[in-house]
Amino acid sequence: MALHRHPNNPTLCIPGSAVQRLLELWQCPFHGPAQTSQQSHPVHPWQRSPKAPGALAASGQCQPLWGRTFPKSRLPLLAQLQPCPAASRPAALVCVAGGSAGMSLELTFLGTGSAFPCPARGAAALLLRRDGHCWLFDCGEGTQTQLMRSHLRAARITKIFITHLHGDHIFGLPGLLCTLSLQSSPDASKAPVDIYGPLGLRSFLWRSLELSHSQLLFPYAVHELVPTRDQCPPEEFRDFSGLDRGEALPQAPPGRVLHLDPGEDSYLLLEDEQLVVRAFRLFHRVPSFGFVLQEKPRPGKLNVQKLKDLGVPPGPLYGQLKRGAAVVLESGATVTPGDVLGAPVPGRKVCVLGDCSGPVGLAAERLCRGADVLVHEATLEDGLQELARERGHSTPGTAARFARSCRARRLVLTHFSQRYRPAGHGTDLGQLRRQAEALLDGQEVTLAEDFMTIEVPLKQ
Amino acid sequence: MALHRHPNNPTLCIPGSAVQRLLELWQCPFHGPAQTSQQSHPVHPWQRSPKAPGALAASGQCQPLWGRTFPKSRLPLLAQLQPCPAASRPAALVCVAGGSAGMSLELTFLGTGSAFPCPARGAAALLLRRDGHCWLFDCGEGTQTQLMRSHLRAARITKIFITHLHGDHIFGLPGLLCTLSLQSSPDASKAPVDIYGPLGLRSFLWRSLELSHSQLLFPYAVHELVPTRDQCPPEEFRDFSGLDRGEALPQAPPGRVLHLDPGEDSYLLLEDEQLVVRAFRLFHRVPSFGFVLQEKPRPGKLNVQKLKDLGVPPGPLYGQLKRGAAVVLESGATVTPGDVLGAPVPGRKVCVLGDCSGPVGLAAERLCRGADVLVHEATLEDGLQELARERGHSTPGTAARFARSCRARRLVLTHFSQRYRPAGHGTDLGQLRRQAEALLDGQEVTLAEDFMTIEVPLKQ
Repeated sequence: MALHRHPNNPTLCIPGSAVQRLLELWQCPFHGPAQTSQQSHPVHPWQRSPKAPGALAASGQCQPLWGRTFPKSRLPLLAQLQPCPAASRPAALVCVAGGSAGMSLELTFLGTGSAFPCPARGAAALLLRRDGHCWLFDCGEGTQTQLMRSHLRAARITKIFITHLHGDHIFGLPGLLCTLSLQSSPDASKAPVDIYGPLGLRSFLWRSLELSHSQLLFPYAVHELVPTRDQCPPEEFRDFSGLDRGEALPQAPPGRVLHLDPGEDSYLLLEDEQLVVRAFRLFHRVPSFGFVLQEKPRPGKLNVQKLKDLGVPPGPLYGQLKRGAAVVLESGATVTPGDVLGAPVPGRKVCVLGDCSGPVGLAAERLCRGADVLVHEATLEDGLQELARERGHSTPGTAARFARSCRARRLVLTHFSQRYRPAGHGTDLGQLRRQAEALLDGQEVTLAEDFMTIEVPLKQ
Repeated sequence: MALHRHPNNPTLCIPGSAVQRLLELWQCPFHGPAQTSQQSHPVHPWQRSPKAPGALAASGQCQPLWGRTFPKSRLPLLAQLQPCPAASRPAALVCVAGGSAGMSLELTFLGTGSAFPCPARGAAALLLRRDGHCWLFDCGEGTQTQLMRSHLRAARITKIFITHLHGDHIFGLPGLLCTLSLQSSPDASKAPVDIYGPLGLRSFLWRSLELSHSQLLFPYAVHELVPTRDQCPPEEFRDFSGLDRGEALPQAPPGRVLHLDPGEDSYLLLEDEQLVVRAFRLFHRVPSFGFVLQEKPRPGKLNVQKLKDLGVPPGPLYGQLKRGAAVVLESGATVTPGDVLGAPVPGRKVCVLGDCSGPVGLAAERLCRGADVLVHEATLEDGLQELARERGHSTPGTAARFARSCRARRLVLTHFSQRYRPAGHGTDLGQLRRQAEALLDGQEVTLAEDFMTIEVPLKQ
């Protein structure tokens, strides 16, 4: 599922799939975002409709396209869309799918720059959408504004994962939470927003909220991962345990303290019927973590012929069998799921690594094995490997070697030094892609851009 | 010096002044900012040059215009400039002056929205430029990115003033300082960056820097203003004294603690030969402050005829007299400044108020009397006055009454609720201006927009 950019064409295509297409949409500066009040989330970029016959809207009008799914039949029409001539830059890359059945899983990059936010690249932030929920990975300064520029709704964020405590990964967090609070109403029965991050994160958040007199209207909990001393150079390690002792904000339960499971060499963050999320250790200038979301296998397909042969009537019994329960027929015969179900279908795996020059321990490689998408930083090019290592960062080569070792299906590079400008801004970022691809036997590597969305399809 | 927008014309004009003109310049998305490395400050918006004869650059090229001053003779040419057709929004409004002699004093609004930053309006931030130095007033999230979008250089910031501790006024501060640090080299002999703000600001900053492992490479000091309990509703008052006790960052001297001078009913922040800066108290949901910069009077003009009559030879003696020193001529006669100098020329006065529903005490009106520019918040329209008061905010009427009471020469409204969209975005902000103007006998009121620059001319 690699991306190709057509020359002289504003679309990105996914070869091998006739029903999926990425369109570059552009934010219209004349009509702006569709904000009407502070209550509704203030952002829908717009697309100037083309003058082509059969256009989606009357000529000269603007038409919101974000977040909509179009049937296959409209794809030729969508391909005619031109970016608004007065637009500045793609506000997002949106996957317009033909409508794949099942639960969608998408990653949208909100910031792909390192060190500090720039107009051309935001500071680190990545949003994962699954089952109507949004999970945010890192929250650099300006993340809330990037969210407003995108097609995503901040109010959907239910979990936040912070890889490490450097400012370009956390300075947007207090502001984002305050804005979410402005958009919400007090409701103690709401499930709390869970925030996971290294030890010290709670103190940063509490102190920021306390001093800014901010009282969040929704419940939240900060769960802290206790790092080990070998996750950074010895002189950089600081013990933040107890920093928030004696402090407490009334609306915030303290959250859990998560220690490394020595047997698994990882941290179990959450597990339910559908998925499990773990963290693993990385080496950086300060302790850093990677996160892996692993879906549990889905039941295999029902073999309809076998069901007929066994005399199972179509209807609710099919559902019971699919859910793993045996059924008793009117004839008295028992049919078990094993009789009629195909092999379980593996779930998807998405791995998001924080800044690092490499993993600590062996868990990272094991947990990331076979990842459908592996998001890895590549701050500097291979030629600057010494500098990268000194700063605790990776190059495309570092990332590709890790992707190769765990046989990731797709490597996405991000967190580029601000010296590298995004595509279309005059700099050739292609060298970073080529450096990674050279180690991956021709497997294509994706360079993240702000607002790029990547869909992770269900396995069949 | 009011601003008028010409219909169908990308320029803003200052009526009554043939030599001044505001041009809307547009950031070119194809050529982007002129960043070449992390060392140099990464922003110079560009202007696509016109194809008109005598254009400033070859057709099709981009030409940096920011921060340049053009002679009168080029103005007709500048007026031909068109915004880059692919540009998204004015990156700034820049005053292109005919070259007024003396020290320039400019205010540039970097964020004019309340509550949170939006793509159309940044969170609170205002930059004052004088004598090559930049002073920042408030630093909401995203201020550093707004600075990059503007023609200003963050590295020139030598003083920062924080009006109050709400997040939309301070959440950009840790990130801005970290980015400034990335752009600087260690130099202990540098004068520290002075940061003034309410008690608690130091703790917010230190905790943020400590937990994000940020060590600033330049010296800085946080000077805290101790508020009085009557600056906010009693239930909102919190005592932050001692919050940073036992904490200290090695590179940061603690800074001063400034108490209200009961005689003056104000806080003296700094005074030198040229100017004095004071703070005064405002009422808001949390203690808030206003700042007034008052230039000291300049010596009057030398009366050349009198100098000749008294036999003072042109040369260094003129300078001595201008600087206020008496001189002794070869004839033995003494000439004093009073003999040859005109009346002193009053200095300029700029007042920047934080969020408030009104002042506390009488100092605000006294200190702001005759202000050349009075920057006052007007979060909501007059029709929502009750809501505004409840939230500790002002309406245009509140601001205009204060401006009238202190006879300010120019009232600039800012800090608009995000429900009001900027000019050209479909909402009529004009009602806010009309509500203020109705109380000011036809005196024009300015509505701030992000990147608008206002020049405060020297008095003659």
